[in-house]
Amino acid sequence: MKITIIGSGVVGQTLAAAFHSQGHQVWMATRNPDETAKRTVEDPQSGESFAHWHAENPGVTLVSFGQVPDGSEVLVNATGGMVSLDALDQIGADKIGSKVLLDVANPLDFSQGFPPTLAYCNTDSLGERIQQRFPGARVVKALNTVNFRVMVQPDIVPGAHNLFMCGDDPGAKEVVLGLLASLGWPRGRVLDLGGIGAARGTEMLMPLWLGLMVQMGSPIMNFEIRRP
Amino acid sequence: MKITIIGSGVVGQTLAAAFHSQGHQVWMATRNPDETAKRTVEDPQSGESFAHWHAENPGVTLVSFGQVPDGSEVLVNATGGMVSLDALDQIGADKIGSKVLLDVANPLDFSQGFPPTLAYCNTDSLGERIQQRFPGARVVKALNTVNFRVMVQPDIVPGAHNLFMCGDDPGAKEVVLGLLASLGWPRGRVLDLGGIGAARGTEMLMPLWLGLMVQMGSPIMNFEIRRP
Repeated sequence: MKITIIGSGVVGQTLAAAFHSQGHQVWMATRNPDETAKRTVEDPQSGESFAHWHAENPGVTLVSFGQVPDGSEVLVNATGGMVSLDALDQIGADKIGSKVLLDVANPLDFSQGFPPTLAYCNTDSLGERIQQRFPGARVVKALNTVNFRVMVQPDIVPGAHNLFMCGDDPGAKEVVLGLLASLGWPRGRVLDLGGIGAARGTEMLMPLWLGLMVQMGSPIMNFEIRRP
Repeated sequence: MKITIIGSGVVGQTLAAAFHSQGHQVWMATRNPDETAKRTVEDPQSGESFAHWHAENPGVTLVSFGQVPDGSEVLVNATGGMVSLDALDQIGADKIGSKVLLDVANPLDFSQGFPPTLAYCNTDSLGERIQQRFPGARVVKALNTVNFRVMVQPDIVPGAHNLFMCGDDPGAKEVVLGLLASLGWPRGRVLDLGGIGAARGTEMLMPLWLGLMVQMGSPIMNFEIRRP
């Protein structure tokens, strides 16, 4: 498929590399591709700079928000949740059209330090705001409840742990289920929570997730839903 | 131990019966014990009326909020989260003193129907509000992330699924860990998230929990935290 990852951080890098390695055509859209390409500062999470990552993944084409290919079949919102709507605005409603838009971000506000709060929740969510702002887009929320390493290597965590997915368009969910399966998440481990309103629940998992990360000393973990 | 359960709903009934069956002395505090005792309407969750439940559990002594025994070693807040502070106010700060106060409630607001929202979250929680209102109390938040049946019969759900616990007083947590172990939750399955501020995370799990309940058609489930 033709996939454009929006955002050049570790989440975007990880998903871009994974999808490209599976034979997809992958673009990465960022505000200023020239500046991004020169970034030599190591990311504290991956221990790698963007320049180093891109040298290892030359097949991923870096473009500006305005240069997102019209032919992209899937857009992946891998920007920070606080800037997602702004980034999508720069891509524009015309370009976004009725594409599948996989939203993996959380609206975490770190302006007051750690732990962050959610910029909005309870009666709203980033997933819903994206769907409202771009009514034609086929938004699917998924992957926002696991660390970037777990996203593409679920087996580093033992057990049949789960992902949560929601969105209003059944066809878009099928596309996302196919992509998730290729990342190592079999269909039965992806729990469909219904419409995009369920994004509230998965984004509101963040405070517990962060608390567990702190207490356990590692982000490499996940939730398995147990039932009789 | 001497345990007073605050609240006469299915959660309070379930915990009162379980603790009493283990040899604890158990009181149940409610606004109007005479009215509560006569309640013959079946609870939709348990399929049982209060009157029927109490006839089966005569060893649990029903008292008013004002009659909570001074000698109670543990108070359990099993009221609805929207009325918890009011109920605790009626018991009074003098009576609450420095007792262990196990808070199992969630501030779910059903006034706009289902699904409920949280009355407050993100920068606040019921656990924190209780601790702030009664600074001397040794508040521990736990058990608020499982259905009442799972609380006292964890084995109806397969796997080594988890409870979350938080609170500022280590001694109070030890007391709670002992009670949880007696309900079938071994120490290793109760994850300590730190201070009472972590109540935000566990209360904010509710929207996802409710979404899963709807999609799966049953509240008999739980989260298992998986890690390498």
